[in-house]
Amino acid sequence: MTQRIHDFLLRRREEGRDTEPCLVVDLDVVRENYQTFAKTLPDTRVFYAVKANPAPEVLRLLASLGSCFDTATVQEAEMALAAGATPDRVSFGNTIKKERDIARAYALGIRLFAVDCKEEVEKIARAAPGAKVFARILYDCAGAEWPLSRKFGCAPEMAVEVLDHAQRLGLEAYGVSFHVGSQQRNVKAWDRALASAAAIFRDCAERGISLKMVNMGGGFPTKYLKDVPTVRSYGMAIFRALRKHFGNRIPETIIEPGRGMVGNAGIIETEVVLISKKSQKEGELRWVYLDIGKFGGLAETMDESIRYQIRSPRDGADVEPVVLAGPTCDSADVMYEKSPYPLPVSLEIGDKLLIDGTGAYTSTYSSVAFNGLPPLKTYHI
Amino acid sequence: MTQRIHDFLLRRREEGRDTEPCLVVDLDVVRENYQTFAKTLPDTRVFYAVKANPAPEVLRLLASLGSCFDTATVQEAEMALAAGATPDRVSFGNTIKKERDIARAYALGIRLFAVDCKEEVEKIARAAPGAKVFARILYDCAGAEWPLSRKFGCAPEMAVEVLDHAQRLGLEAYGVSFHVGSQQRNVKAWDRALASAAAIFRDCAERGISLKMVNMGGGFPTKYLKDVPTVRSYGMAIFRALRKHFGNRIPETIIEPGRGMVGNAGIIETEVVLISKKSQKEGELRWVYLDIGKFGGLAETMDESIRYQIRSPRDGADVEPVVLAGPTCDSADVMYEKSPYPLPVSLEIGDKLLIDGTGAYTSTYSSVAFNGLPPLKTYHI
Repeated sequence: MTQRIHDFLLRRREEGRDTEPCLVVDLDVVRENYQTFAKTLPDTRVFYAVKANPAPEVLRLLASLGSCFDTATVQEAEMALAAGATPDRVSFGNTIKKERDIARAYALGIRLFAVDCKEEVEKIARAAPGAKVFARILYDCAGAEWPLSRKFGCAPEMAVEVLDHAQRLGLEAYGVSFHVGSQQRNVKAWDRALASAAAIFRDCAERGISLKMVNMGGGFPTKYLKDVPTVRSYGMAIFRALRKHFGNRIPETIIEPGRGMVGNAGIIETEVVLISKKSQKEGELRWVYLDIGKFGGLAETMDESIRYQIRSPRDGADVEPVVLAGPTCDSADVMYEKSPYPLPVSLEIGDKLLIDGTGAYTSTYSSVAFNGLPPLKTYHI
Repeated sequence: MTQRIHDFLLRRREEGRDTEPCLVVDLDVVRENYQTFAKTLPDTRVFYAVKANPAPEVLRLLASLGSCFDTATVQEAEMALAAGATPDRVSFGNTIKKERDIARAYALGIRLFAVDCKEEVEKIARAAPGAKVFARILYDCAGAEWPLSRKFGCAPEMAVEVLDHAQRLGLEAYGVSFHVGSQQRNVKAWDRALASAAAIFRDCAERGISLKMVNMGGGFPTKYLKDVPTVRSYGMAIFRALRKHFGNRIPETIIEPGRGMVGNAGIIETEVVLISKKSQKEGELRWVYLDIGKFGGLAETMDESIRYQIRSPRDGADVEPVVLAGPTCDSADVMYEKSPYPLPVSLEIGDKLLIDGTGAYTSTYSSVAFNGLPPLKTYHI
């Protein structure tokens, strides 16, 4: 936790405003993260994945630093533009788009679109004539903590057909994208994906299509419980892989960090609402209920995928594993049960806990009013 | 679908307002559902589970019909009161409450609280002196489509201790509650739970505590794809079980229908955004992407638990199984993949689909702005 967040939370408590959980994001950390990406991969353009945290403060900061923006919807594109980005710095990176939304994005000046099938290419040809498109390929995400489903992307051989189709319809077949999975800890994952991208470049070249760009997606991890490699080690591995597969003709490259840009900049403060047991049976675990759960911002604990680091004022004391659950009347609102979470034995109702690394994929996942609870309060300082 | 919903959707389309998905709830169906519960179990008070759908229109209608309200938070209690319920018709049914929220509810006049441990009893004794409490017991939910975790409730033998503790601290040990699991299709499930409740009544009587109420919770199913027993058959089974376990001294009873009250009153209209394949491989399924998904209101498709009935304008044509996914840039936003969903082969991009039985647990589950998408639009007509 940074000193700024520490001081902010202290002041909030002193002023008696700590009655609800909140997320605090330190913009200085976001700035450092951006600069690290920019410095480590100097020839790569950074497209911040807006969905990770679309707070205007984050977008304005990144726009001022020169970042580009990967947007999932027209609404996100509008937010990026409102924050100061120019349309040439915004991509429409979702492979699933309504034709009228493509037209809206085109009207805003956006010219870079993701596709993974001919059907989507046809919509873009009609609604955004002449635009650049890149084809997303499927990639198995071994090594990722939050592996992706097969939802986005197509087989590499189909990507060639999709790009060919785009070129025939008057679009500019511009490049290839992949995603190695969120929270990818194996720095070599990019190597295999880049090999596949290079093969598509060659196949397209044989058809007379000269691709120009590789979008290497996101996947850069933030530190939760386990240590993760540094951005520098990713940068070096990526550069080596580019050299290996593209030789002296390294294409234009893009990365789309989301979690890696804002994850470690945020901390959630939550309160222990109840500590209890279900029976007096030997070995029965304690249940600890917080005032935030799966529907209040911790959606990524789904299937216990993301295991956050949680700190308490009693750290250092003896710990024991507990089941950790949220405050709603929904029985699915349990964060860690299959792998109970070690917390201090001396923990008490009313204690405040800090959940680290929650700057990404928390505030906007929060439900609009489930159980009458307000969405997660956020402060970007 | 009712004629009123049909006409509403038609008018919306004619006026060109059908650019986003929406939920339409027919209040006449809610009224009928309430009356069916009231008629079938004439001696049982109905506490509508507000969390299922807290729309003011639903709450006002039910308040005017004489319903009571089961609330999960102070915010929900305030909504029920604002809709016209008196405090004696509102219970604070969540076993996880902040002490200051108990005090707020007490100040609003609420006197009925759920507990499942001594720690919670102590909070209530301090913040709501003299209030009535009922102890929730654990119950395994065999037969339920959406079985509950062990999050709420304690072992029956512990419930006796909890109620005894309440009585000693000046509260009124009032009764027992259980929940047979959501979407419970086995009408006999209540029998086993009532046997357990009756045993707690006897154990408490031996300690000089005279319990008065059994809260039989919710679980009454709404019809999705499979046929479900009628409310009448539930009513008869429950009445027989009460007679069997309580003889001539049948206690005051409460039910808490949520899904059973509003589920079948609502329909979601959604648009097909994209239909595509991932490769040309033999047997590769088509993917159908809608403009609503797990983060827009269909959260209950988590683990493919709830399988909604989906209708298309091309029903009657040949069908084939497809993978059904939502519109966001989140790879977890896939509704049906393990069990692909049969949809017409002739389905086209732009077609409107109707998702039946979506009046409960949809609108408020929807995320506040994930991917910049607005929360689900709702109309209660």
